[in-house]
Amino acid sequence: MIRIDRARLEETFREQARIGATTGGGLTRLALSDEDRIIRDRMVAWLEAAGCAVRVDRMGNIFGRRPASPGGPTDDELPPVVMGSHVDSVPTGGRFDGVLGVVCALEAIRALNAAKTRTRHPIELAIFTNEEGARFQPAMLGSAVMAGKVSLEDAYNKRDRHGIRLVDELERIGYLGAEPCIPRPMRAYLELHIEQGPFLEEAGLPVGVVEGIVAIAWARVTFHGEQDHAGPTPMPARHDALVAAADVVKAVRRIPLEIGRDMVGTVGWLDVHPNIVNAIPGKAVLTSDLRAPSDTDLDRAVERLEAAARDAAAAEGVRPEYEPLMRVPLTRFDTDVVGAVEAAATTLGVRYRRMLSGAGHDAQHMAAICPTGMVFVPSIRGKSHCEEENTHFDDIEHGANVLLHAALTLAGPA
Amino acid sequence: MIRIDRARLEETFREQARIGATTGGGLTRLALSDEDRIIRDRMVAWLEAAGCAVRVDRMGNIFGRRPASPGGPTDDELPPVVMGSHVDSVPTGGRFDGVLGVVCALEAIRALNAAKTRTRHPIELAIFTNEEGARFQPAMLGSAVMAGKVSLEDAYNKRDRHGIRLVDELERIGYLGAEPCIPRPMRAYLELHIEQGPFLEEAGLPVGVVEGIVAIAWARVTFHGEQDHAGPTPMPARHDALVAAADVVKAVRRIPLEIGRDMVGTVGWLDVHPNIVNAIPGKAVLTSDLRAPSDTDLDRAVERLEAAARDAAAAEGVRPEYEPLMRVPLTRFDTDVVGAVEAAATTLGVRYRRMLSGAGHDAQHMAAICPTGMVFVPSIRGKSHCEEENTHFDDIEHGANVLLHAALTLAGPA
Repeated sequence: MIRIDRARLEETFREQARIGATTGGGLTRLALSDEDRIIRDRMVAWLEAAGCAVRVDRMGNIFGRRPASPGGPTDDELPPVVMGSHVDSVPTGGRFDGVLGVVCALEAIRALNAAKTRTRHPIELAIFTNEEGARFQPAMLGSAVMAGKVSLEDAYNKRDRHGIRLVDELERIGYLGAEPCIPRPMRAYLELHIEQGPFLEEAGLPVGVVEGIVAIAWARVTFHGEQDHAGPTPMPARHDALVAAADVVKAVRRIPLEIGRDMVGTVGWLDVHPNIVNAIPGKAVLTSDLRAPSDTDLDRAVERLEAAARDAAAAEGVRPEYEPLMRVPLTRFDTDVVGAVEAAATTLGVRYRRMLSGAGHDAQHMAAICPTGMVFVPSIRGKSHCEEENTHFDDIEHGANVLLHAALTLAGPA
Repeated sequence: MIRIDRARLEETFREQARIGATTGGGLTRLALSDEDRIIRDRMVAWLEAAGCAVRVDRMGNIFGRRPASPGGPTDDELPPVVMGSHVDSVPTGGRFDGVLGVVCALEAIRALNAAKTRTRHPIELAIFTNEEGARFQPAMLGSAVMAGKVSLEDAYNKRDRHGIRLVDELERIGYLGAEPCIPRPMRAYLELHIEQGPFLEEAGLPVGVVEGIVAIAWARVTFHGEQDHAGPTPMPARHDALVAAADVVKAVRRIPLEIGRDMVGTVGWLDVHPNIVNAIPGKAVLTSDLRAPSDTDLDRAVERLEAAARDAAAAEGVRPEYEPLMRVPLTRFDTDVVGAVEAAATTLGVRYRRMLSGAGHDAQHMAAICPTGMVFVPSIRGKSHCEEENTHFDDIEHGANVLLHAALTLAGPA
């Protein structure tokens, strides 16, 4: 039975991890940065060396196609089985998030080449632009445009915190491609990713068969208080935007515990104005990230967040402003694709569990335009979006083999 | 009886308020910025036009001396009566904080000139560098160096948030003077300032006779948590630095109310790392500003703050770091100088109350090296460190006349 080459996979992984490496053993490889350009160039070179025809679309998404019959025409008739993920990272993030799925997909293609295996459908590797959303909001922008969730023009005009436009950075790093960024026929989309949570490790399982992605709601809450001198302003006369914000931070911690059933809630971003020691904050801006395994639970959580923001504002005498930033309903993956992943694990004798993803992935948008599934591998201590992010290579090897065999099954024998 | 010229005072005030004016009717005139250079140049020109000999010391503090006998030698034998304040502002601050005391002192000198009044002691106007502490910490740096509280070398090496050194900015704007910045004999130091609190307005009084300055404690609290992905990390597994910080924000609000007796507490500064929507904050840094009218109350408050930081850290499983930044004991002004201010108000028929200042002022450091007192004028709605900062000119006129007469009494008849 065909298998990936673990030594080759590890070497490729180590090489990518040097690009944007941090001193703490992680990565800072923000979307469309110089580091992103270098990893993209490297991936394109590796794909071409593996006999793939590489195309770049107008969002900078990269596609490398392995023809159905090696040596044959690249413009195949049957829709491809696409494997992919992203190569950008959050600031001081880990070496695995995103790029591991790309490296494993590349290794799957190399393994097919080494075994001279032909497939009925062509096989593609996809690398999506700006998945993390750390530089340009929202996250998963490359796949969102492809799925028609965000217009190309809107995406082009997104600016980072220095005011630099996405389209200008795409052009600067040489990845403003010519291909239309629109849905096209695909046999399936498969994405291998680290779990980023603790469940697989706790269960001692090397692989998760992902059935879907939790519902996610992002919001921005701004409190407008009264900037004043921290000394002579008596406590009862204060309208402190940060005190109201602190109430919301605590509410976002409390609400998921009240609702239960694997909900989570995070305030990741909080800006204070004017942010000096001796001024009562006149303005505070925070974001809330709520996630739930059911749309109903998420609706209840969002209602409670809005109420908490109103209550906090009323208690402090400040003006609240509530802006929904993103709402993604529960994503259910395709039964056949999930079945193919499960069958691959069974065939290979790899122990697994079915599970939901707690994080958004490009697979979420792809699920809207083609049959989609995902393979998870464990995260040590569940840690992700940090330098300590780690996964045992024994688990990665199992995951990559499951990915390879699921893709093979979906692509069919030549 | 000699009086200040209100029209001239108002005109000078309006002219200074144009330098660094914000669209919202306030000022942004950070220490040692270009705007600070412009207001300094203007003040020096006004002082020289008023017959004062101007000197600049190594901290950029400006002194303009009106000789004891007009036309006589400038190097007088008797120590001067010094009136002063500062001309820098916080970002988007008001038009009054600091500069009003300088403008009123200038007008007092002009009034003495117009009346050809001679004094036994010379009269000086002082403008202190970097009072606000908005750009370089700590606040009141110019007077702190003069009083020997901070060494000149330490002050020179203070950096703003862009890493620019104070000494380089002093040199750049042309105010790195040659005079030593050390204590010298002074008959008295008098500072007129806006109250920045609501008490005078609430009592309907135009003037406050300031007996001292509340005790102040600044601290920085840092929480080191675990940066992690906001999606797949279950709530019980989190070590969120911002959740602990929110507890401290609420504690700093609660502690002064528990202790009572006019205490105040403020978290003005809070920075979150990495500060993105979908990462659990790995680090949060905040400052606490606690003030009390007694050192004992302040000690109790600081103890409670430290305990609150420890408790918050323990509850969230993060590591706390507590750094005291500044501790200023209760400052009591000189009985004779306070008496001279009170006597001036009585002589002029101006209604007043004795009070403590809730804000730090250069007078706090001057009190350590010479007999010191202050005159307060009301702040409309108690607002300060914001663009809405305002004071009625009827009140300012009363305050300026009290300043003039207190200075005259202390300087003595020629």
